[in-house]
Amino acid sequence: MDNKKYVYLFSEGNATMKNLLGGKGANLAEMSILGIPVPQGFIVTTEVCNKYYEDGKVIAEKIIKEIHENIAKLEKITGKEFGSTTNPLLVSVRSGARVSMPGMMDTVLNLGLNDEAVEAMSKLTNNPRFAYDSYRRFIQMFSDVVMGIEKRLFENIIDELKEEKGVKVDTDLTGEDLKELVKRFKALYKKEKGEEFLADPKQQLIESITAVFRSWDNPRAIVYRRLNDIPGEWGTAVSVQEMVFGNKGETSGTGVVFSRDPSTGENVVYGEYLMNAQGEDVVAGIRTPLPISKLEEQNPVIYKEFTDIIDTLEKHYKDMQDMEMTIEEGKLYFLQTRNGKRTAQAALKIAVDLVEDGTLTKEEAILKVEPRQLDSLLHPAFDVEDLKNSKVIGKGLPASPGAACGTIAFTAEEAKERAEKGENVVLVRLETSPEDIEGMIAAKGILTVRGGMTSHAAVVARGMGTCCVAGCGELKVSEVNRTLEVDGKVYTADDFISIDGSTGNIYGVAVKTVTPEISGHFAKFMGWADEIRKLKVRTNADTPKDTKQAVEFGAEGIGLCRTEHMFFAEDRIKAVREMIVAKNVEERRRALDKILPMQKEDFIGIYEALEGMPATIRFLDPPLHEFLPHSDEDIASLAKDMGIGFEELKATVESLHEFNPMMGHRGCRLAVSYPEIAEMQTRAVIEAAIAVKENKGYDIIPEIMIPLVGDVKELKYVKDIVVRTAEAVMKEKGVKLEYKVGTMIEIPRACIIADEIAKEAEFFSFGTNDLTQMAFGFSRDDAAKFLVDYYENKIYEQDPFAKLDQKGVGELIKLAVQKGREGRPNIKLGICGEHGGDPSSVEFCHNIGLDYVSCSPFRVPLARLAAAQAQVKNRR
Amino acid sequence: MDNKKYVYLFSEGNATMKNLLGGKGANLAEMSILGIPVPQGFIVTTEVCNKYYEDGKVIAEKIIKEIHENIAKLEKITGKEFGSTTNPLLVSVRSGARVSMPGMMDTVLNLGLNDEAVEAMSKLTNNPRFAYDSYRRFIQMFSDVVMGIEKRLFENIIDELKEEKGVKVDTDLTGEDLKELVKRFKALYKKEKGEEFLADPKQQLIESITAVFRSWDNPRAIVYRRLNDIPGEWGTAVSVQEMVFGNKGETSGTGVVFSRDPSTGENVVYGEYLMNAQGEDVVAGIRTPLPISKLEEQNPVIYKEFTDIIDTLEKHYKDMQDMEMTIEEGKLYFLQTRNGKRTAQAALKIAVDLVEDGTLTKEEAILKVEPRQLDSLLHPAFDVEDLKNSKVIGKGLPASPGAACGTIAFTAEEAKERAEKGENVVLVRLETSPEDIEGMIAAKGILTVRGGMTSHAAVVARGMGTCCVAGCGELKVSEVNRTLEVDGKVYTADDFISIDGSTGNIYGVAVKTVTPEISGHFAKFMGWADEIRKLKVRTNADTPKDTKQAVEFGAEGIGLCRTEHMFFAEDRIKAVREMIVAKNVEERRRALDKILPMQKEDFIGIYEALEGMPATIRFLDPPLHEFLPHSDEDIASLAKDMGIGFEELKATVESLHEFNPMMGHRGCRLAVSYPEIAEMQTRAVIEAAIAVKENKGYDIIPEIMIPLVGDVKELKYVKDIVVRTAEAVMKEKGVKLEYKVGTMIEIPRACIIADEIAKEAEFFSFGTNDLTQMAFGFSRDDAAKFLVDYYENKIYEQDPFAKLDQKGVGELIKLAVQKGREGRPNIKLGICGEHGGDPSSVEFCHNIGLDYVSCSPFRVPLARLAAAQAQVKNRR
Repeated sequence: MDNKKYVYLFSEGNATMKNLLGGKGANLAEMSILGIPVPQGFIVTTEVCNKYYEDGKVIAEKIIKEIHENIAKLEKITGKEFGSTTNPLLVSVRSGARVSMPGMMDTVLNLGLNDEAVEAMSKLTNNPRFAYDSYRRFIQMFSDVVMGIEKRLFENIIDELKEEKGVKVDTDLTGEDLKELVKRFKALYKKEKGEEFLADPKQQLIESITAVFRSWDNPRAIVYRRLNDIPGEWGTAVSVQEMVFGNKGETSGTGVVFSRDPSTGENVVYGEYLMNAQGEDVVAGIRTPLPISKLEEQNPVIYKEFTDIIDTLEKHYKDMQDMEMTIEEGKLYFLQTRNGKRTAQAALKIAVDLVEDGTLTKEEAILKVEPRQLDSLLHPAFDVEDLKNSKVIGKGLPASPGAACGTIAFTAEEAKERAEKGENVVLVRLETSPEDIEGMIAAKGILTVRGGMTSHAAVVARGMGTCCVAGCGELKVSEVNRTLEVDGKVYTADDFISIDGSTGNIYGVAVKTVTPEISGHFAKFMGWADEIRKLKVRTNADTPKDTKQAVEFGAEGIGLCRTEHMFFAEDRIKAVREMIVAKNVEERRRALDKILPMQKEDFIGIYEALEGMPATIRFLDPPLHEFLPHSDEDIASLAKDMGIGFEELKATVESLHEFNPMMGHRGCRLAVSYPEIAEMQTRAVIEAAIAVKENKGYDIIPEIMIPLVGDVKELKYVKDIVVRTAEAVMKEKGVKLEYKVGTMIEIPRACIIADEIAKEAEFFSFGTNDLTQMAFGFSRDDAAKFLVDYYENKIYEQDPFAKLDQKGVGELIKLAVQKGREGRPNIKLGICGEHGGDPSSVEFCHNIGLDYVSCSPFRVPLARLAAAQAQVKNRR
Repeated sequence: MDNKKYVYLFSEGNATMKNLLGGKGANLAEMSILGIPVPQGFIVTTEVCNKYYEDGKVIAEKIIKEIHENIAKLEKITGKEFGSTTNPLLVSVRSGARVSMPGMMDTVLNLGLNDEAVEAMSKLTNNPRFAYDSYRRFIQMFSDVVMGIEKRLFENIIDELKEEKGVKVDTDLTGEDLKELVKRFKALYKKEKGEEFLADPKQQLIESITAVFRSWDNPRAIVYRRLNDIPGEWGTAVSVQEMVFGNKGETSGTGVVFSRDPSTGENVVYGEYLMNAQGEDVVAGIRTPLPISKLEEQNPVIYKEFTDIIDTLEKHYKDMQDMEMTIEEGKLYFLQTRNGKRTAQAALKIAVDLVEDGTLTKEEAILKVEPRQLDSLLHPAFDVEDLKNSKVIGKGLPASPGAACGTIAFTAEEAKERAEKGENVVLVRLETSPEDIEGMIAAKGILTVRGGMTSHAAVVARGMGTCCVAGCGELKVSEVNRTLEVDGKVYTADDFISIDGSTGNIYGVAVKTVTPEISGHFAKFMGWADEIRKLKVRTNADTPKDTKQAVEFGAEGIGLCRTEHMFFAEDRIKAVREMIVAKNVEERRRALDKILPMQKEDFIGIYEALEGMPATIRFLDPPLHEFLPHSDEDIASLAKDMGIGFEELKATVESLHEFNPMMGHRGCRLAVSYPEIAEMQTRAVIEAAIAVKENKGYDIIPEIMIPLVGDVKELKYVKDIVVRTAEAVMKEKGVKLEYKVGTMIEIPRACIIADEIAKEAEFFSFGTNDLTQMAFGFSRDDAAKFLVDYYENKIYEQDPFAKLDQKGVGELIKLAVQKGREGRPNIKLGICGEHGGDPSSVEFCHNIGLDYVSCSPFRVPLARLAAAQAQVKNRR
């Protein structure tokens, strides 16, 4: 038997009940407790929302009964009555999830009005215009939100009436006009729905609550939840609250205020208000609101009461508050309070200020800044004013944060050439491949038609800190014609576009970008984060430049150095290709001998940038065909370059063809087939470490990482090559050097037999990109297309390549951690997939006891903060 | 401290010690116990072999000491002495693994000879020719096997000497000639090795034992082990046994005998012998051996003794024995006994005979037939005589058993056309794709250049019972020129080739095939298997024809009906393509409406063939681009057919392109994006079941299987579509029908969350092909290329697509079984991957408690037997 309580009066709740009552509901209850003037009401819990969906989108009879009981209580509290012909109760019906999702769900105001109640209200207020304006607004809102009648139809009627009456603005319509409007609205309703407008306030209420629950699953709410990492199972609560009116005359008003400045964090009350107005009017922009400071002049008494409450609320919540208030005929009401959204700069300043004035401990302050927000401190952003006038022409995935603006380059070569001439270009591609690397470096931003959050473009762009929008399927790009078609317009290489890697928005014009300044608060705050966190933060970096950048951002070593990225540089690719087409071991060794000094130089540069911090170096990973051209034309040209026959080279390219390259001849499988490659790489790693030790005195402990291992014998085989070569090099040089050999855990089978693998591996680094692919059985390059359908149907809520799937992939990792420690108690454990830069994934890594996370340089501060938050939330 | 015993005298062992002493060693010990005349000796255990490899390919000092002690014991037993100048001890050194691996490893005979011992032997036997012949054979064998000096060099010396002496055959060389030969052999040895021939018998012995261990890992042994499923960790034992000689004159001889006829199974002693000869001579073919029956005339006393022993051995081992014997100067010795290899026909007859004469119980008899052998009863084979004269021109994977011969067809269309004209063709392709299906059906055999044991060609061929050799990389096939180049020769469409799908051999000529006859023993024997087994056996079948075939072979239902195979038929592919290029749901539904009646007919045919047995029907699985052409030419032609523009169709084909189709938009992901497809398939399944019930009275319980599920919500989403449609169809028809909805477990994540999935799934069927791919992270189409390197380096011993990887994939399955039962205690569990037809994998399925295995029709008998054997070995 279900004895659960589904509806709470404000007086029955408090701020700790957010999960059940939603953020808004819990805070309304809390304000009641604090004695702050709040119009009274009740909250239908988030559990009702979940039950609504479980029960097939109906609210159970039992709960409807409970709602009716609470209406009765509210009537008693307010002394008003639903549908009363003398003193009718009007309520607002609002959504309220555990965290605020502004504008995503539906709201109904002025509920309770009908033909009788409006008359009573008219008499009571002696203001027919006000009463009928409220009524027509309610009909309009209810019809739209609850009944799905297009808003536009109502707007048309208003326009008609205004024309008839010869007036320009709504406010010029008289009470009688509005009465006529109500008549016409109700006629429209009847025409559309085939029945009279719903007159029973209780039915109005149940329908409206249902509509709010329904709106929990509207498309924009689903997208918002995915972007903000809010689980669908949280559900929304619904608060039903007595209406108060800011538009009852000059002693009434409405306002929105922040207890501090949300842009700068400055400790001043900040906000706007308007007398004789409803919130709607402010939004509609008919009248310009006044800065809140004006209220002090207009009404010092109210202002004092008002600022006292603000003070109380901020002290109580120990955070900057964002509040809505209404003054009804001289009486002040607070309709809402919540922790206010703020810019990253403001967030840091507020957190530091609150620690310094003793309000918060460092641990508490750490939780007050959203790790993702730090992104905006590290990347350019669009000028806010300029952005207002720029139309969004398309939207892709926000793959790498920041803002970029430039003319369009359709190939990497073009991007490079034009950038060298000083032009700002945005590289637009169907998808990028490793060959595009130089053009990607040269471009201000990267825009791709295909690929997801972990596509090549996304990963490389994040690594470089370059803005990237990926997988924008609406674009039609023709590389041949050098055109980009979108939103009905064709853009050429002469046109400007602007892309926002933090939102995925694409603009068809040049939008000004601004580079943020980093304040001293950043260093202080991040210092606290570093004091607190237990999880180390390394970086994924393949060049000395990236490494330096990451070290500046606080990286404590390299967790993933992808050696193949070095193979694509123009001056090296030739030797790499010679290696691939080599017909025997001798030829292959000759080609590798050419690569060796270059690879060694790479490592020297990276080691120097690390100044003694550790570096995990992953051996060659991608299938060899990635290094070869594929079109006949390119093959012919390369064959000529290399002095071999076209047919011969074509045959090599074809023999390397794979149906599923992601599951092909790559990773350690290359070293098994061509041990010479592993030998060359080992030699480069060790010789470089010796050189850096001799020249700079840094004691580098190289960590050689064998990728894609699925069996201990496989690891052992490659490890033996590494150890043999390393020992030989050290003997040659007469130097003893410490080094480690470990493996990337990225194959499900490796998790299952991790105990065996740990016998040979001195460290594990979880390659969660591949592990996610294999665990789910979909490739990150192909999944973007159908994941859209999955989000729409609520099968998946999150992109598992962006946020670690804790239930599936996470279980595999936990298994590997446990078994890995069984096999080698002091094994070092880290993660180097893209998830190393995702806050919730970082928290997971902390909780399962990893030693470090590794992420791209520009995500290092984010990971540091997320690691500190994880420690505060889950002390280990 | 290691107190292990590493060396056993024959008298210290017995037949139960096979794992430690090897099959040969254990049987020698057992024969000793039984009082059968066996030359004495000792056995170095399999553990020494493993330790040899662990210790870096050396035999530990401690073990060498133990060998020396046993030499001393053997000297005492025989009264002879190593290197004695009066009565020298000569021994043979032979390999002996747990199971026999004939010819795979090395042997040294006549060990113990040196310049002094040979003289002693010459005197003792008064036969210098015999003594020096033995010596030169020993030098030759030891130099080859132990020292790696090419055999050919010794053969050259013999030829030179024969020319000098003007004789034709070896036996015409005199004792003096042989003495000269020994001199020259020793000179060659010195020249090659830079030192004198090893004279110390003890050193000779240790070196020879080492050589046998070394030969455990020679390439042919590794391949043999893989083909016969023998783990490398078993190792080989070495038996050291006093030499006896069959070539000491007319009272000596040698023979090989079977206790029954190994071709027919008839209960008669069968074999050959030769007087005054060594085993080698028989093999060399210089003299023709006599049938064993002749021995009765030649020497009735020996014959009587001999047949009595054979009788004893067969009764003792309760199985047909394969024995080697030597008569030395009138005294009979047995050198070996083992369970004899036999044809499938013989195996069945012997098993049935042994039960009927009371020697064996049915349970014991079941174990006497190798399940794989049944293949040869169901498929054509090459004529043995004809095969002798046919050269192998290449070798691929034995992908589907049987033998085929025909002219070469290079495309599926060609194969179909020419087959329709009555020609026998072998279809030769780089790889096959679903479009080739009709040509594959028409061909006698299929040969592919690429792909492994579970490639499309292999899976489809096994399903049809058609012979297939896959992944033969040495072939150069040009579809354009219509040529096949291999082994230096070019074959055209007019040339005959023959392929053996049981060995992988390819012959460049026409080889006659013979179709086996199935005897009554088969039915009787398989009946016993059915009585015993607990595991049910279903079949993977997609057509009424295959279903009937499988039912004849004893299938108890369909475990996997792949519905997409029906989509490729010529008359349907058009509608399927219309469905794919449909621009909206309405167009897609219109195309699906055309497919519905055809799909329904398919199911009616299949249900009728099943006569009421259950059918698991898997919904559409492959990515849609598999149904579309890819070359511009074919796209243009199809566009014309469909009356749409080339550009439009080309754009559709391109938009469906996937980087990794195996991890792409397929399986249930299709149903999520296009619910209409699942609706159509559900309707076909249910309407067909209703029709068959009405027309034939069969109560079919369709089992609808949703493929590639990775999350319970995904299954729930598709299941809801199925249930909704099924209920609607039943309501329309006014019929109530039982049906089940379940899922294929083939994604690693599904194993991890199997408890959740089981809440929605009424059955699990393990799709071990995909599960193996995802667990290992390599695709079956691409892995064949690099797995060769893995076998060579002993990283993997078995193809995980052929034999289930119990350690990795098996653990995932066990987890899913356990969790699945937690989620739904009565859940039905089966397997439908290719592993369902592999004996060791069937045993695994039995042991973990699955309800059934499902395999291709021609493997059903094999699976029935393997299931019975599993029950006998592991009662459940």
